[in-house]
Amino acid sequence: MLQWLRQYRRAMLPGDVSAGVVVAMMMIPQGMAYALVAGLPPVVGIYASIVPPLLYALFGTSTTQSVGPMAIISLMTASILAPLAAPGSGLYGVLAAQLALLSGAVLLVCGLLRIGFLANFFSRPVMSGFTIGSAILIAWGQLKTLLGGPLDAPHWTSAALGLGSLVLLAAARSHLAPLLRRLRVPATAADIGAKLAPMLVVLGATLLVALGGLQHAGVATTGAVPSGLPRLNLALSHAHWETLLKPALLIGFMVFLISMSGAQALALKRGEKLSSNRELIGLGAANLGSALSGGFPVTGSISRSAVNFAAGANSQLAGIITAGLLALALVAPTDWLALLPLPTLAATIIVAVLGMLDLSTLRTAWRYDRADAAALLATAGGVLVMGVEAGVVIGVALSIGALIWRASRPHIAVLGRIPGTEHFRNVERYEAATAPGLLMLRIDAGLFFGNVEAVNERIEDELAANPGTRHLVLVLSAVNAIDTTALFALSELNASLRQRGVLLHLAEVKGPVMDRLRDSDLLDSLNGELFLSAAKAWERLA
Amino acid sequence: MLQWLRQYRRAMLPGDVSAGVVVAMMMIPQGMAYALVAGLPPVVGIYASIVPPLLYALFGTSTTQSVGPMAIISLMTASILAPLAAPGSGLYGVLAAQLALLSGAVLLVCGLLRIGFLANFFSRPVMSGFTIGSAILIAWGQLKTLLGGPLDAPHWTSAALGLGSLVLLAAARSHLAPLLRRLRVPATAADIGAKLAPMLVVLGATLLVALGGLQHAGVATTGAVPSGLPRLNLALSHAHWETLLKPALLIGFMVFLISMSGAQALALKRGEKLSSNRELIGLGAANLGSALSGGFPVTGSISRSAVNFAAGANSQLAGIITAGLLALALVAPTDWLALLPLPTLAATIIVAVLGMLDLSTLRTAWRYDRADAAALLATAGGVLVMGVEAGVVIGVALSIGALIWRASRPHIAVLGRIPGTEHFRNVERYEAATAPGLLMLRIDAGLFFGNVEAVNERIEDELAANPGTRHLVLVLSAVNAIDTTALFALSELNASLRQRGVLLHLAEVKGPVMDRLRDSDLLDSLNGELFLSAAKAWERLA
Repeated sequence: MLQWLRQYRRAMLPGDVSAGVVVAMMMIPQGMAYALVAGLPPVVGIYASIVPPLLYALFGTSTTQSVGPMAIISLMTASILAPLAAPGSGLYGVLAAQLALLSGAVLLVCGLLRIGFLANFFSRPVMSGFTIGSAILIAWGQLKTLLGGPLDAPHWTSAALGLGSLVLLAAARSHLAPLLRRLRVPATAADIGAKLAPMLVVLGATLLVALGGLQHAGVATTGAVPSGLPRLNLALSHAHWETLLKPALLIGFMVFLISMSGAQALALKRGEKLSSNRELIGLGAANLGSALSGGFPVTGSISRSAVNFAAGANSQLAGIITAGLLALALVAPTDWLALLPLPTLAATIIVAVLGMLDLSTLRTAWRYDRADAAALLATAGGVLVMGVEAGVVIGVALSIGALIWRASRPHIAVLGRIPGTEHFRNVERYEAATAPGLLMLRIDAGLFFGNVEAVNERIEDELAANPGTRHLVLVLSAVNAIDTTALFALSELNASLRQRGVLLHLAEVKGPVMDRLRDSDLLDSLNGELFLSAAKAWERLA
Repeated sequence: MLQWLRQYRRAMLPGDVSAGVVVAMMMIPQGMAYALVAGLPPVVGIYASIVPPLLYALFGTSTTQSVGPMAIISLMTASILAPLAAPGSGLYGVLAAQLALLSGAVLLVCGLLRIGFLANFFSRPVMSGFTIGSAILIAWGQLKTLLGGPLDAPHWTSAALGLGSLVLLAAARSHLAPLLRRLRVPATAADIGAKLAPMLVVLGATLLVALGGLQHAGVATTGAVPSGLPRLNLALSHAHWETLLKPALLIGFMVFLISMSGAQALALKRGEKLSSNRELIGLGAANLGSALSGGFPVTGSISRSAVNFAAGANSQLAGIITAGLLALALVAPTDWLALLPLPTLAATIIVAVLGMLDLSTLRTAWRYDRADAAALLATAGGVLVMGVEAGVVIGVALSIGALIWRASRPHIAVLGRIPGTEHFRNVERYEAATAPGLLMLRIDAGLFFGNVEAVNERIEDELAANPGTRHLVLVLSAVNAIDTTALFALSELNASLRQRGVLLHLAEVKGPVMDRLRDSDLLDSLNGELFLSAAKAWERLA
């Protein structure tokens, strides 16, 4: 805890300060916008950007992670709470905090149980499909706010403001950084400057509303924003504990996956190491903090973290500075925020989430592995057709399916000898000779419950294809472990082969595997022999 | 379909007939008893033993599988239906058939989708724990029937009959076969004869009731059994489709796992091969048939299938003969069945399920792999404390956890050269020399989403431990596949290492992996080289 603080050096300060300031400028419009996505008042998004990063800085391990509201988690929050309470109602806010509380508890428990290895769960294509589906769903959901009304009956002033903001933001996204660079701004500063476009557009639009009195012309604005820091929130709805528990598991799971996928990419760039168990605890504490300060579920945002990284964040201090600045913004007069036009906020959301529509994973997967591409499309389609929660479930099911499918297809090679050598190779790939009555199989996977049947089937197939076999040698050079199920399967294979007059031999058993086998009866009851190498087995049996 | 019939030879007939007769004798008391466990009238157990095996014979692949009522599936049926209807009510029977219908549909769909590889899902310890917990739960549930009342207030006549039957059955179980053998009955016949003890005890107890008029003394009996074959059942409760769908998934899953684990053990003994997808279809058809003939969920029974096998079953004809005999028994006068005492039936259940309390898996696992033993105990405890459905869920969670845990810990070795040779080995296990600035890592697992993080972490650890590294060689001799996620991870590693001035090389890439990599950008962007062998890499870089 706070290990980074003990190792803090003065030279790290400038980077942390500049990153803290830049991210705070990004956080204000984003926080408010994602609160809107979650169906909450915009100021709640600022609340959720203050306490969570402070707690994350205490417990988390990533130096560049920016913890706070995030589009997909906000979408999930809205989809979970919509059937339970009316957006904008007091109950809705209470349930949002309660969802954060439960999600935080789930994350904390997982961290304490040290099951962070679950971070390896979603494949990249599944995650990409989930993100694409969610991004489209979020953008679609903002259309009405952007236009000030439904697609076929927009409120023209609002639509003009929204679409104008959209065009400006989109243009800034693709052209502002190159433009700044042409104006001789250093490359990094230009890139970071471009990220502040949303803040500038929001300020500009607010100014426009104020000067033009557009709020009187029917343009929706955020309305009065209460000044002052978030207060301690202990309100809970006892009627909804059970209803929220399962969704909290889903949210906790996605908070962790989303946060880790962003943080790990950045850690890799700096050669830093994350502890997934400590990340679980950091994110859990952040969500508990969000709940207690009247917020909603938060996670590490990939886009903000990348800016934090690029702006020079050297430690968790950057996040603390961001939180401090946001707190200052709430203590300062907040009257001007009341006139912030919602169509512009919707535009920032749409531009941000369309930036998540990264099709490169789909393109690569399509070319490289059609099954992965299909998993991506199925997950994206699932999110779009059945909603974001069903999308998580589909992603989980596809990942489990892929895992079992993969596990149940171990690679097994029939070995033959390369003539004149002591080398043994797959007869399908090399000119290797087999000997009559001798069948040598190399199993290229650890033996465990997931593949014993496949191994059995392959052995029976090979025995059927080689009816004169007297000796079966299993070459275990690639077998790093044999679990209890596989141990039983080997014993049964041994007994079955004995009845059929075939001797079962083992060769090249690895040291740790052999150590374990000595604790079993297999070696004593083996009707064949143990060989140190495939060559020794050949010498003796061919 | 019916392939076995086309290959039928006359010589197979005697074995099939004797097995068919023996299993029928076993099936009558078992079918009635397991119907009781499921909360249904005993005759329903006979109904469920007629149509299902006929349909299984049409579609299934096991020659020795005996499909019909089974203790654990009956327990699950009772636990699913208990909250929905009163046992003995008309609705209860309708829902039992409906559950079989839905389970059958689930199995059929899975078979048509060819996802039989899911049979590899439960580890043997988890399955054993599930069986042990269920057996205890079933035996416990029969105590009241055995004693004719609660433990502290038994009905003494019933208890005497029940406990007497229990002692007789237990004695027969352990002593009858040796006794028959001592009486010069051939060994196999003696073993099979001993399996008929339940039928004899049931007949004897019924005779005792009839002669002593015990039914008037308060001994519960099965009561009037309708004579005649099961009729087509099309009754359904429209109100319960949705409620039953999730339980039907659980039942279908367990029907498949239980049936496969028994059938595969027997198939192995004869060197036969099962098709798990056709087994799904066979079991699905059997359950649909059970539903349409007024039955309840059925599966392959390990104990009956073993007797079928031992009694000489050579083909699915044995099951057809069993079904035919049971149909005959229902057409013949069934009046005598009315006096069958329930305490005796309870005794047959208790002896049968206590026979499933096989502790050898626990003993082996405890000695061989403590984690597997813990999974066994957790599943058994889960069934006992939280019920049989929760037990399935716990088993699934433990299996998924084990799968991910295993996948997320690939074996990675730092390679060094055995001096004076071209052999490269794990430096931890061999006296192998490394070269300064050169780090060679062999990854002993296919690279995929489940282990990319672990591989990344290990690489960072090794780079940190060897700060002077200029060349990182990944030796991929054991890598049989690289999925899209791992492809991205390798590309990102490549970019990260380039920034840090380390060259990334690949060696011993397998043929099929190389074919796939050519469809990607990795090879073009690789900042190091491709080597055919670790030796070539050493030669060039050391």
